[in-house]
Amino acid sequence: MGIAVVGTVALDTVETPFGRAEDVLGGSATYFSASAGFFTDVSLVAVVGDDFPEEHIRFFQSRDINIDGLQRKEGKTFHWRGRYGYDLNEAETVDTQLNVLTGFSPRLPESCRDAEFLFLANIDPDLQMQVLEQAKKPALVACDSMNFWISSKPESLKNVLKRVDLAIINEGEARQLTGEPNLVKASKIILSLGCGRLVIKRGEYGVLMFTNDTVFAAPAYPLEEVFDPTGAGDTFAGGFMGYLANSGDLSEEGYRQAIIFGSVMASFNVEDFSLERMKRLSYREIEARYRNFRYLTTFRDII
Amino acid sequence: MGIAVVGTVALDTVETPFGRAEDVLGGSATYFSASAGFFTDVSLVAVVGDDFPEEHIRFFQSRDINIDGLQRKEGKTFHWRGRYGYDLNEAETVDTQLNVLTGFSPRLPESCRDAEFLFLANIDPDLQMQVLEQAKKPALVACDSMNFWISSKPESLKNVLKRVDLAIINEGEARQLTGEPNLVKASKIILSLGCGRLVIKRGEYGVLMFTNDTVFAAPAYPLEEVFDPTGAGDTFAGGFMGYLANSGDLSEEGYRQAIIFGSVMASFNVEDFSLERMKRLSYREIEARYRNFRYLTTFRDII
Repeated sequence: MGIAVVGTVALDTVETPFGRAEDVLGGSATYFSASAGFFTDVSLVAVVGDDFPEEHIRFFQSRDINIDGLQRKEGKTFHWRGRYGYDLNEAETVDTQLNVLTGFSPRLPESCRDAEFLFLANIDPDLQMQVLEQAKKPALVACDSMNFWISSKPESLKNVLKRVDLAIINEGEARQLTGEPNLVKASKIILSLGCGRLVIKRGEYGVLMFTNDTVFAAPAYPLEEVFDPTGAGDTFAGGFMGYLANSGDLSEEGYRQAIIFGSVMASFNVEDFSLERMKRLSYREIEARYRNFRYLTTFRDII
Repeated sequence: MGIAVVGTVALDTVETPFGRAEDVLGGSATYFSASAGFFTDVSLVAVVGDDFPEEHIRFFQSRDINIDGLQRKEGKTFHWRGRYGYDLNEAETVDTQLNVLTGFSPRLPESCRDAEFLFLANIDPDLQMQVLEQAKKPALVACDSMNFWISSKPESLKNVLKRVDLAIINEGEARQLTGEPNLVKASKIILSLGCGRLVIKRGEYGVLMFTNDTVFAAPAYPLEEVFDPTGAGDTFAGGFMGYLANSGDLSEEGYRQAIIFGSVMASFNVEDFSLERMKRLSYREIEARYRNFRYLTTFRDII
């Protein structure tokens, strides 16, 4: 049962027009785990350095996140430094220090090889493939990626896309990967690589989900206070897969509900720096926002 | 009964990556009228030159659009020349020749002063005000505008916004008008000017509709073939107001349905150059796409 996620655990320094947070907890696997943990059991596979604060370890433990797969290496933890302008749409990466991420070789410990769901967060597609080969037939495998891998390792990434059930990428990446500006056409090209379902994230504009037969569109929740967008995509993926793993409902209807739960989680996460909003979030708030999402999007049929 | 629209009738030259159309029928009032005409009676108030082809007059007549308010002046018709790149999101204006639009003084003829709905398409806000003063208490007045008037005549535009019930603008304009990048905050500022309802168009990302108490979000219909986005915003406004005028349902529910009808009309319009798609569109197709919109956006409640 539950989900295993392979990705990064980072210390981030983030500047937005509303403030600055230094050396705070971040990374794709971190955001994913904290979000999915509201719905299901999560095992985290990543690497940190010997500078990684104990309080973050205790945070994972307090959420019952299995960290058997969290390697601790000599050296510094992966560090990302980014900056957002007033429109908050795109992070400008100021500095990336890979540190212990260099030479990372992810290993799924025995305690999470049986995870029914597997999420390959944004890391080198060759490492994603390495993880795929260690997993015992999960019911559902999803992957993310980024512009850097699309341009530097397109063939490796396409091989991963052949092997996964679901790709979760943003719209710029979909266009870059296919060379096709029209997203409906781009989705067909990506689906033809082999994954059966594609989720395209569009930031403040919401999400599109494609299969060969269906399209679903969900807006992002309109927020008056967006404080820090860092981690929104991974928080979305965590809520989306967490709900799916918990419900076990892999029908189109189940996927659609999962998209909304993912969107709800992302909408909370951007309300504060780092994992701060996740730390004080309750399931009651999640359900209330899901219902608000229904009201936000509902309209009558014609008779 | 019905709608009066004041705006432009133009001859456009449009280049897209998929082709070029020279001196074709365009203009805000044209797109609006053709779209609204599927739902209700429309009276068009605008000006054309003596070069305006008779076939376009016949098109208006064939749609039962009242052109008593279409002035014909000596000189050339307003001409817009624009170009779109592959992403089709933003038109680059190559050339604007105002021609007979210079010195245009809109007059609502007797036959349309009783129109229950009035749409002030994108023209000089001083002219919009002039029209407002001629109308006899319409049940609903809506206006559009553009970046040019926001920067050149902000006070005139704000006076118009005080007098209308509904503003329909795009997201860049909402941000420019308020100096606020966050759309929820920007909407509050615009609503505080006096209009009770605000529709923010976001191109391929859909529409947000705000009142002081409600928010509604609708995606744009995902299209595989977007041929020419010219007129999409006015076609949207035409479907939106046309449906409202026909149903007379000014409840939140009625407005939401109108947003979807507007989105449906816009989605058809971009499938071909100029008014070509509108010319061969049937009401049956409109209803079918409305139902597809429902399927596109529907998800289950949580229990």
